Amino acid sequence: MNLSTVQSCPFLAIFAVPSVAKDRAFGVYPVTEPCPHMSGPVLGPFERFAIMQQPQASFLFDLDGTLVDSVYQHVLAWNEALDAEGIKLSVWRIHRKIGMSGGLLTNMLLRETGLEIDSDRIERLQRLHAQAYIRLSAKIQPLPGARELLAYLTGAKIPWAIATSGRMETARPALETLGIQFDQIPIVTRDQVKHAKPDPDLFLTAAERVGSEIETASVVGDSVWDMLAARRARALGIGLLSGGYGQEELERAGAYRVYEDPADLLNHIDEVGGRR
Amino acid sequence: MNLSTVQSCPFLAIFAVPSVAKDRAFGVYPVTEPCPHMSGPVLGPFERFAIMQQPQASFLFDLDGTLVDSVYQHVLAWNEALDAEGIKLSVWRIHRKIGMSGGLLTNMLLRETGLEIDSDRIERLQRLHAQAYIRLSAKIQPLPGARELLAYLTGAKIPWAIATSGRMETARPALETLGIQFDQIPIVTRDQVKHAKPDPDLFLTAAERVGSEIETASVVGDSVWDMLAARRARALGIGLLSGGYGQEELERAGAYRVYEDPADLLNHIDEVGGRR
Repeated sequence: MNLSTVQSCPFLAIFAVPSVAKDRAFGVYPVTEPCPHMSGPVLGPFERFAIMQQPQASFLFDLDGTLVDSVYQHVLAWNEALDAEGIKLSVWRIHRKIGMSGGLLTNMLLRETGLEIDSDRIERLQRLHAQAYIRLSAKIQPLPGARELLAYLTGAKIPWAIATSGRMETARPALETLGIQFDQIPIVTRDQVKHAKPDPDLFLTAAERVGSEIETASVVGDSVWDMLAARRARALGIGLLSGGYGQEELERAGAYRVYEDPADLLNHIDEVGGRR
Repeated sequence: MNLSTVQSCPFLAIFAVPSVAKDRAFGVYPVTEPCPHMSGPVLGPFERFAIMQQPQASFLFDLDGTLVDSVYQHVLAWNEALDAEGIKLSVWRIHRKIGMSGGLLTNMLLRETGLEIDSDRIERLQRLHAQAYIRLSAKIQPLPGARELLAYLTGAKIPWAIATSGRMETARPALETLGIQFDQIPIVTRDQVKHAKPDPDLFLTAAERVGSEIETASVVGDSVWDMLAARRARALGIGLLSGGYGQEELERAGAYRVYEDPADLLNHIDEVGGRR
């Protein structure tokens, strides 16, 4: 069995990719080709070795500030929620926490302001934020090049997924502006993992869902929480400026490269292993 | 004539300080003390030398994002104005231009988007921004420590002024939240100079108004435009994170020190020459 056989074998793909994206896992095989394992036994050591020799690049995207221009609306929605609870906090401090888990964000904000962290208050803040965000986000748009970048990856048969610290309730409008087909693209939200960013769970789950080793995946995000989660997951972090962080902040947090926005990343896709 | 005489001489103060803040210029002299120059001729070389030997620290503050928490409202006000004109621009790009002259900002934005720069459109955008900002800024607050920092400087008889790229129309509500006495503190707005930031005119005028040499003045600002204007004016730039720029961006733009906000600057005031 040579490598091209491995690539053309849906059994091997299924071995690594139990879920949504198996038709794109390992990128290039036509699923109609014959496969020597369809009636065969479990994988032997050689086959496993062959898979490891063929690392599959994949792209795991954050959503807000990375694919859609929604960070500043999130910032002001949190500002409104905190204000309604009588919590005074400078807006830049909220900005610097966008992208992490909402529960962690409220915990941190309450701790920094010295206020009591009780679960009722946290739940109330999260509800107020979701309400304000849905109102403020009526006009949000994809970032320049976002649709084109995703279309390029799909066309190049490079697996990709979206992994967001938000819940599906707040993520859905943003995903809809991108024209995402929910039944075809792995979308990992905060509802599906125990810990959101900066824990690595979202990206680990996303890599599993596209059938890629996390070590060969590129995590694309606009916040230092994405870069920290990428490091903890052992993926390659790629920063985008479109969420309002500075280039050096993202680099210091571990970004291998920093681009302006999805359009700029698409222009430089060969620098980060996104070859056709 | 010794240095203490120079310090106690209102004539010398008036020589350097034609305007508002002459009662605080050179910091420490009681204006009731006798002065050998009241009936004297023009300053001789020795007196001029004596002034140069007694450099007077002063603080020249930017307003938005430096003393009041208003940057994000400005960002969304520009976003609204651009949207009303059918101009699509990512919000982070607007954020990175806040703090420069409004005319320059609209020029730059139009050039970047490839749209025609005509003066009617620029005027319309500036009017739309001002309207949206006044609506959005109803709830703006001083940044933590801003009032305390200004009170400290006044108490320590260290001259200070405010120099903002905004016009008095949009600056007034912010200045009012700080409890500024308009007849006592030099406020230099865009209305009073030919070129706003990143040109040095605002800070040069502010230094003149407080009677300080620009070379011994500290310019405190939250944006790279403040730091660039400070360099061009030959003042010391001090960055604050409270406008949403990253520390490294401000350092790269020439900030000698970067603090979180006015409260943090006040805590470290001795590091930047603000001794009593």
